Parts: sequence; C-alpha cells; structure tokens
Amino acid sequence: MRQSQLFTKTIREASKDEKSLNAQLLLRAGFIDKLSSGVYTFLPLGFRVLEKIEKIISQEIESINGQRILMPTLVSKKNWQQTGRWKAFEELYKVKGKGGQEYGLGSTHEEVIVPVVQKYVSSYKNLPCYVYQIQTKFRDEIRVKSGILRTREFDMKDLYSFHKDEKDLDKYYEKVKKTYFDILKRMGLKDKTYLTLASGGTFSKFSHEFQTITPAGEDIVHICQNCGLAVNEEIKKDHSKCFQCGRREFKKEKVIEVGNIFKLGTKYTKPFNFQFTDKDGSKKLVVMGCYGIGLSRLMGTIAEVHNDKSGIIWPKEVAPFDAHLIQIGNSNEINKQTKKVYNAFEKQGIEVLYDDREDKSPGEKFADADLIGIPLRIVISERTLAKNCVEIKKRSKTKTELVKLNLLNSYICKNS
Amino acid sequence: MRQSQLFTKTIREASKDEKSLNAQLLLRAGFIDKLSSGVYTFLPLGFRVLEKIEKIISQEIESINGQRILMPTLVSKKNWQQTGRWKAFEELYKVKGKGGQEYGLGSTHEEVIVPVVQKYVSSYKNLPCYVYQIQTKFRDEIRVKSGILRTREFDMKDLYSFHKDEKDLDKYYEKVKKTYFDILKRMGLKDKTYLTLASGGTFSKFSHEFQTITPAGEDIVHICQNCGLAVNEEIKKDHSKCFQCGRREFKKEKVIEVGNIFKLGTKYTKPFNFQFTDKDGSKKLVVMGCYGIGLSRLMGTIAEVHNDKSGIIWPKEVAPFDAHLIQIGNSNEINKQTKKVYNAFEKQGIEVLYDDREDKSPGEKFADADLIGIPLRIVISERTLAKNCVEIKKRSKTKTELVKLNLLNSYICKNS
Repeated sequence: MRQSQLFTKTIREASKDEKSLNAQLLLRAGFIDKLSSGVYTFLPLGFRVLEKIEKIISQEIESINGQRILMPTLVSKKNWQQTGRWKAFEELYKVKGKGGQEYGLGSTHEEVIVPVVQKYVSSYKNLPCYVYQIQTKFRDEIRVKSGILRTREFDMKDLYSFHKDEKDLDKYYEKVKKTYFDILKRMGLKDKTYLTLASGGTFSKFSHEFQTITPAGEDIVHICQNCGLAVNEEIKKDHSKCFQCGRREFKKEKVIEVGNIFKLGTKYTKPFNFQFTDKDGSKKLVVMGCYGIGLSRLMGTIAEVHNDKSGIIWPKEVAPFDAHLIQIGNSNEINKQTKKVYNAFEKQGIEVLYDDREDKSPGEKFADADLIGIPLRIVISERTLAKNCVEIKKRSKTKTELVKLNLLNSYICKNS
Repeated sequence: MRQSQLFTKTIREASKDEKSLNAQLLLRAGFIDKLSSGVYTFLPLGFRVLEKIEKIISQEIESINGQRILMPTLVSKKNWQQTGRWKAFEELYKVKGKGGQEYGLGSTHEEVIVPVVQKYVSSYKNLPCYVYQIQTKFRDEIRVKSGILRTREFDMKDLYSFHKDEKDLDKYYEKVKKTYFDILKRMGLKDKTYLTLASGGTFSKFSHEFQTITPAGEDIVHICQNCGLAVNEEIKKDHSKCFQCGRREFKKEKVIEVGNIFKLGTKYTKPFNFQFTDKDGSKKLVVMGCYGIGLSRLMGTIAEVHNDKSGIIWPKEVAPFDAHLIQIGNSNEINKQTKKVYNAFEKQGIEVLYDDREDKSPGEKFADADLIGIPLRIVISERTLAKNCVEIKKRSKTKTELVKLNLLNSYICKNS
C-alpha cells in the first residue's frame, strides 16, 4: 500500500487523556482512534494487526478441531434467566426493543452455545465436540483504563468444548493449554506469559489464566522462583507454599490477563438440562470447558511489551505489513527503482507499506517508520542506488546493512 | 472436513414458525439457527458462506481503493445528537451504562466515520479517500420476517467516500455501481438484480438500489420493458414514463434490496463542520458518498434464488466447500481410496466436506448433499472403484459422469 493513500497520519504528541503506553503508541501511530471512554475504532493499520491476530488464533484453534460459528450479540433475556445471570452478571448491558423484547449484549456466550449444541448432540457418539467464535463482546465496566487492555467493547475468541465425562475434558483442557502457548509464541508473548493458577469457580479447584508481565498490568501474580508456576494474588494470600514444588520464594509481578481457561463441568449444561445418552443407555449431563483469549487485548499487550522510545516493534507475524519501503528523493531513477521494488513485492504477496510521500523529509519518514514499527525498513536513495543497493534495517536492531538490489528478494524471503 | 465431525446435522422437517424459503432451507441444512425473532446464529456451514461473501466484497472494495477499518457498536449519544438522529432514527437500539453513558448501537456509521476522517483530512491533498467496514449492525425492527433477509442484527459492508467536490463524487459513484455488479456476478445474483432508482434523500434527486427479483421480496420495482431501468414503487407512482427512455411499459416484480448507494453530499459533514482547505486557500465542506451491501441478506437472497425442491444450489464462489466427497460402503479398499482422494484434496487446498459417516444409507447421504448444496458431488463406491473411477455430479445438473481416479485432480481444477 502506498503511504500517500493511507488516510491516517502519525500524531507527534501523545493525547493527554490517554495515560497508558499501549494507547499512546497506538494512537500516535494511527492504529486506533478513541470514540469515547473504553470504546475505540481500529483504523487501517490497527485493523490489519487484528486480522493477523485473528488468523493465528483461528489456525491454532482449528488445529485442535474447533469449528467456527458466529453467535448473536442480542441475547434474549430468557436465555440469561435460565442460568441466573440476567441478575447475577453485573457487567451485562441490557437493551429493550420497541416491541418489548429484552436482550443482554453478549459478553460471553454459554447461554447461546449450550442450547445450540443441545439441538444436535444427543448421544455419546456425537461427543466430544469443539465450537468457537471470534467476535465483538460487550461489558459494562464502571472504570475503564489501560487503553485497549480493558474496554467496554472488545474482540474475543471463545472456544467451548463438550464432553461425555471429566476425563475427556481433562485431556482436551491440557491440549488447549499447549495451544495457547503456541498462539502466544507466534505473537511474541510466550516468554513473558505465565500459566497462572486462579480461582476455579464452581467446578474445579482452580482455573488457569495466561498472564503476561507488563507494568500496565492490572493483576498481580506471584511467580515461584524455583519451578516457575504463577499464582494469582487472589488465591496466593491463602497459601504460603508453592502448589507445585512446595518452596516459599516468590516474585511479585504486575501482569495483564490475555487468556483464561475454565473447566465448567455441568455449570451451564444443567440449567438447560443438556443430557446425552451414554453407551450403556443411561442419560448424563454433558461436561463443558471454555477457553477465552482477547484479540484487542492481545494487540494492546504486544504494544506494551514490544516497544522502545521511538515506537512499537511488531513481532513478524502480527505486523501490519512485512516491510516498510522508504523512498528518499524524487529523481526519475529513484522513482523508477523504488516502484520496481514495490511492484515486485506486491506480485509475490509480500505486504509492503511504500512511503512515497513527496512532502516529507527523510527524518520524518524514519521517525514515522519507527513509530509504526514494521519489522523491516528498506530505504532506497541516491546513495544506495549508487551501489546498486537498498539499505535494510530491522526495527528491533540498530545496525543497517546494504543489500544488492538483485539479492533483495532472497533476503526478504529469508527474513519475512 | 469430515462430516462425522461436523456438530450440526440436517433436519428433515422445516420448522413451523419459519415461513420464508431461505430460512427453511438454511435451517434444515444446518447453516443457521434461530435464537429469537430476527436473531440468528451462523453455524459452521453458514459461517463458511459468510466468510466467502466477505472475501469477495473486501477484494472488490479494495480494488477500488477502500481501506478497511472496524468501528464501535457502542456509539455515543452525543455523536447521534450532532446529526439529529438520536431522535430521528426510530430503529436505533439505545443502551445506558451503569455510569450513565448512553449509546446507540451502530446501525449505520456516518456519526463515527466523519469525525474519524476529519482528524486526518484537512487539505485537498488528502482527498479523495475511501474507507469501509464489514461488521455487525443493529436495527430495532418492529416486524421481522423473511428469515435472514430482514433481521434485528445483521452483517453489513459500508463504504464511505470523501471528496473535494460533487464531480469527483460522481466519478467514484459510477465506479462503485460497476463494482457492485462485479460483486453480485461472483455470487450468482447479477442476472436477477436490477439497478433501481429510489428516492434520494436530501442531496441528490435519486439514490440507487440493487434489487434482486425473488418471490420473498419485500419491495416492488417497476422494470421498463424497453430499456431495463427499474424504478422503486415509492417513486414510480409519481411518474408514468420511464426516466431513461420515456416509454410506458413496465413489469412489476417483487424484489429484495441487497445493496444501496447514496450521494450524501454535505449532509453529514456539515453537522461536524468537516471542512478542507482547497487549492486556492478557501475552506469548503467535504462531499460524501456512502455505499451499503448486506452480507447476511446476500446469503439469504442467494438461497432464495438458487435452489430446487431438494435444497440449496450454492454458486461456486460462495459455497461452504468446493466439493462434497461421499463414501458409500466401508470395505478396506473403499476406506483407503476415499481417504487418499480426501487427503490429496486437502493438500491442494481444495475445500472438501467428506461424508465419512458409517451409520447413514446412500440415500440419506445423497439427500443431505442435495440439501447442503455444495457445487460438486463426488461419490466413491464399490461400483465406481471397479472401473477405477469416481462418480461426479454437479449440484445444478441431473446427469452424473464417471471420472478416472488419476484424472480427478485435473477435473476438479477445471471445475472449482
């Protein structure tokens, strides 16, 4: 894409009412725009990052047999009443239609998925089954803060699994744990994310959170300095020893919860009386698990974790573009060579942001490139062309290197 | 995908409270599920169709330089007030947060996109610019009917264009008209869709609707039998002659509106005082166009237009899978050969639904295949293997043909 066509521009000054680093960086670089407190628009660059995150998540969830569906936002009052959450769920936005219909805006979808799957699953032969959604969810948060880490409207992936017994759930639960780390690895977050014990709700003793260390974190975990298990502060206070190895040395860290997984058991199948016929002819309640991960929150977390004083440093797989091609100077030769490189990239499906702006100085172009944070910066100027080269710099490094024009292709294929 | 894994099943009996053909077909085949009146879940097969529709639309809109963004659903009251639509827009769902914040659920996004683009566009040099979204929209319809043709929650693409003057808008408007027919052609709807004159609102004399002939249609158009121009009944009643050729012979048709395009002029830029500095230094209001097309409505329309008594007949580009591979019999040889074909397809990226169900008769499998409506049906049985063949039938045709196993690949490549 030509940068001269991109309708957003970078903003020099961080907005005053945005205290959090992720929002400051993303706003300044033109990834997001704030409509009101806790409500954001994802601009072209930000939408591209969201798309990349979505692609990674759906690939990984489909690798463990998740089947994707799209559930409604307008979830009828009667569905929420069936589980008691019409009253119990404080963050539910409630809407009333002109005809008197009442809805809670979907902020989690057990009340929809259970009756849907119940229509099709009646025998042990139909189990297990795995269904997921990636869509906008809503939560009436009193306090919103931390940029796009905690908002009133956000993108979530929720996977729901249905099993004939707890043993089968346990097996799949472990599989999802592993898959979550595969997802986080592709987004550059694995090293800073800890599997964390948290309170389990009604069914299992503990649930698991995926907590990423960042100063912007709203949660606190205690990480065992011996075995690396993390424990959420809410349950740590009752225990002085590590659950896993029994030692007592912990390090306290501020973290953001990027995902969580729950063994729900029959918590939601019971109110809908969702039973199946087992092999022996007996009727049993279906056993459930649910597994959430926040897409927009992941985007904010990546920005919090991967940056320097000049801007964001996107990990390769979630970057809005593979490369940022910068043209310095406007001579015919430079125009011709840069366009040639750009067209060659486009043809090969390498995603390039081409800074073809004529009214910007080299300094402004470099500053914008650092702020936007695309992994590879490729500069073409009179100086590089004199050597039949382009200058390449990785966003994460300081050194630049000259690469021959005729070797550029293979360089990019190796590095993107 | 293995059909034994697909959690939905086909349903023999059409649901009684669904009168419309599209909903009956889509419900029976397991594409959608109804949560409440006018509110549907898109199940795995339905989600795949929506994805295909989305892909076609985004490709075509990006070919005319649309930049994709994602706007919020929770649109602040003050934005709606600025244009007067907080009161004037009757179908707006209104929500109040615990902190007193009031929102209208996005059902059209001029109130968001105008202030967003205004932040970045201040000079004639930044114009024109084209921004689009594909997302869920909400409308508090008193009466919902016609299955997924008119719902309270639906997927829409909205493109907004910003121009320095009407002449530039006119030029782009004609381009979008052409692009809409390119989109409709890929979905198998071009032949039945008429460009229709409708009332223009405040700015231009007319707007244009894209109206597809179907008995389930809620609108009525009059099609000139001489030149083919269609006119919406709402404006036809004031005119007895064709606007284009002056003749008086019309045919009345029931139609469903799949898209509409508007010249908005300064209707929404004025309330936000969205001005730009022109070449001569003068300040002028930005001129706008908007262009909508309904994704879930398109899906319903395709089902209404492309079907026979046995089920849906999906056009190739929007089908949930490229081919439906059906195994008849469970001998080792049949298992082996069918799996081989299936794996070869998967490897090549050909999307196949593989009916590996052991407890279904050939008749049940064929009936399900017809109902689901995938363009190519490939059957492997003892009889076909005896000739080293598979049997292929196009969903839209009655005749079957035998294709040698070693020629299957090239047959599929030519036909999908």
